[in-house]
Amino acid sequence: MKATVYHGNATVSLDDVADARLVDPTDAVVSIEYAGVCGSDLWTYRGQGAVAPSRIGHEFVGTVSQIGSEVHDISVGDWVIVPFRWSDGTCANCRRGLETSCVNGGFWGRHIPDAGQAQAARVPFADGTLVKTYPDGRRPDAALIPSLLTLSDVFTTGYHCAVSAGINHGDVVVIIGDGAVGLSAILAAKMLGAQYVINAGSTHENHHDLAEAFGADEIITARGEQAVEAVRGLSADNMADIVLECVGSAQSFETAIGMVRPGGTISYVGLPHGVSIDLAKLFATNVTITGGISPAHHYIAQLLPEVLSGSIEPGKVYTREYALDDIAQAYDDLDHRRIIKPLIKVR
Amino acid sequence: MKATVYHGNATVSLDDVADARLVDPTDAVVSIEYAGVCGSDLWTYRGQGAVAPSRIGHEFVGTVSQIGSEVHDISVGDWVIVPFRWSDGTCANCRRGLETSCVNGGFWGRHIPDAGQAQAARVPFADGTLVKTYPDGRRPDAALIPSLLTLSDVFTTGYHCAVSAGINHGDVVVIIGDGAVGLSAILAAKMLGAQYVINAGSTHENHHDLAEAFGADEIITARGEQAVEAVRGLSADNMADIVLECVGSAQSFETAIGMVRPGGTISYVGLPHGVSIDLAKLFATNVTITGGISPAHHYIAQLLPEVLSGSIEPGKVYTREYALDDIAQAYDDLDHRRIIKPLIKVR
Repeated sequence: MKATVYHGNATVSLDDVADARLVDPTDAVVSIEYAGVCGSDLWTYRGQGAVAPSRIGHEFVGTVSQIGSEVHDISVGDWVIVPFRWSDGTCANCRRGLETSCVNGGFWGRHIPDAGQAQAARVPFADGTLVKTYPDGRRPDAALIPSLLTLSDVFTTGYHCAVSAGINHGDVVVIIGDGAVGLSAILAAKMLGAQYVINAGSTHENHHDLAEAFGADEIITARGEQAVEAVRGLSADNMADIVLECVGSAQSFETAIGMVRPGGTISYVGLPHGVSIDLAKLFATNVTITGGISPAHHYIAQLLPEVLSGSIEPGKVYTREYALDDIAQAYDDLDHRRIIKPLIKVR
Repeated sequence: MKATVYHGNATVSLDDVADARLVDPTDAVVSIEYAGVCGSDLWTYRGQGAVAPSRIGHEFVGTVSQIGSEVHDISVGDWVIVPFRWSDGTCANCRRGLETSCVNGGFWGRHIPDAGQAQAARVPFADGTLVKTYPDGRRPDAALIPSLLTLSDVFTTGYHCAVSAGINHGDVVVIIGDGAVGLSAILAAKMLGAQYVINAGSTHENHHDLAEAFGADEIITARGEQAVEAVRGLSADNMADIVLECVGSAQSFETAIGMVRPGGTISYVGLPHGVSIDLAKLFATNVTITGGISPAHHYIAQLLPEVLSGSIEPGKVYTREYALDDIAQAYDDLDHRRIIKPLIKVR
């Protein structure tokens, strides 16, 4: 079968690999229909932290083609969403809804060779990991698939940012960052009742339309201290109740701290790179820092009705579709910000 | 009148100063009856950050002796609790219940000369700052006064730690630190429904009885990695749902991070000294960092009934009473941990 392989030095290619197969009796094999390319795949692509060669991709949906003897809740033929980390569904962390901390969990392409930008993948702990969109496992309408694919990672990540922040009705919320996660966080903040949503540090003009479509009331193209000043001019209180930090750099956290009001919250969902917070700076203002890696699986059940009814369309973050054969072009386009996010049609 | 003055180099003395007087029409003057010495006074005493000479003390109660022409809710003769920071009661932060961020607030002995370990003090924004224990302003029973005094700072600080952490019924809660704030946090955690309360890093044996009286189910004398290991052996989940960090050192935060479960919360209420948190360490486990300086004023109304009914006795943290004349001895005893916390009888 064909799978995308990262070869180091900003190079990916579609290579021949061994067919996906069952290893443990709790495994399934998923025949992949669509996959996404994630901003975190770019970290790998740029050589930060990944081993080459390794298979890549962790946002994918498709149809179950094989199941192990101990898989009970999933059947061959089910159309499923595959969260970006697998989880057993039974450990204390899974039961709490924090599947990303599953004691038996792992990441595609890292803890097993299989990954999502491929024709198929082995899925460990299929019962705990896979989510059907309908109880009978039927395939959803094609128009819904991009939005359903976002539930594997990108939209649930933006949603986790907003949920963790504890957004209340009436809040002024600033989202820092205009990538697909930041845009998802705008949509999530509006869903949770934010009154006024400001997208700050939105330097890519081709992202502004989607930011507005997702509910941004205001777009600030500035970064850093200029962005802080711009927020002071916009909100009645001169500061944000909540800042959703969707960049992960030291500068963006400093901007977030500058914008948030006393007693407010900064929530983050991208892996922070070189971000050290001096708590003495937050003490006098009682600012909370929360967030972390999103337990996508936990949120799918509550978000499925919103997607299936069409009341939200998070799949709009995919601004261009590529055949799996064109995966290298998809990475190059994302890396150069020619698009917001690539949708990979596998079959 | 007499007031305690910090002269630098671990020296305080009771000096003659000008009588407390009204300056602004929103001021009152309080004739002080009892005062406390706070752990944060020791930072001053040890020369960290304070200007000498300066008057000192920020936990006090007493009777209103004068009011300005624009004071409406407080009358001469009212017996009042004075929170450790004054606040106007009307700004956006005060209305939110975050009086420590009052835009017109300030600290005793720093933003005005007056402070609490003295015979009297000027109180700015008397209506916003002072809290009567009874609507008619009458003096409470003498036996209740130490506990009422704790509402000026120490108990409301421990309570803020527990409230900010969002303790739920059934939680396993670790309190790091065995000073008066840590002990107060034990009592607060139990009030909020913590199922199992562990006091870690409790190195002072003479504090153990009070820790148990306040509700500690387990006392761990170890610190650091040994304390982390001890917690793993005690809780069903092998980790704490919540850690209340009541020390403020880099080591104690590292211990807290080692103890808290995925998705758990670390709450802190002492000014962190040299504590820098690498967020990449919290990302994978979704640990929240919250807390900060306690808005004591905000909590007094909800805690008064508990104190007046005798259902809690936070005043037990005062383990020895001193006359104001003996203030230097009180500091020396606290500095050497001969006592948990000094109660100063002014008159």
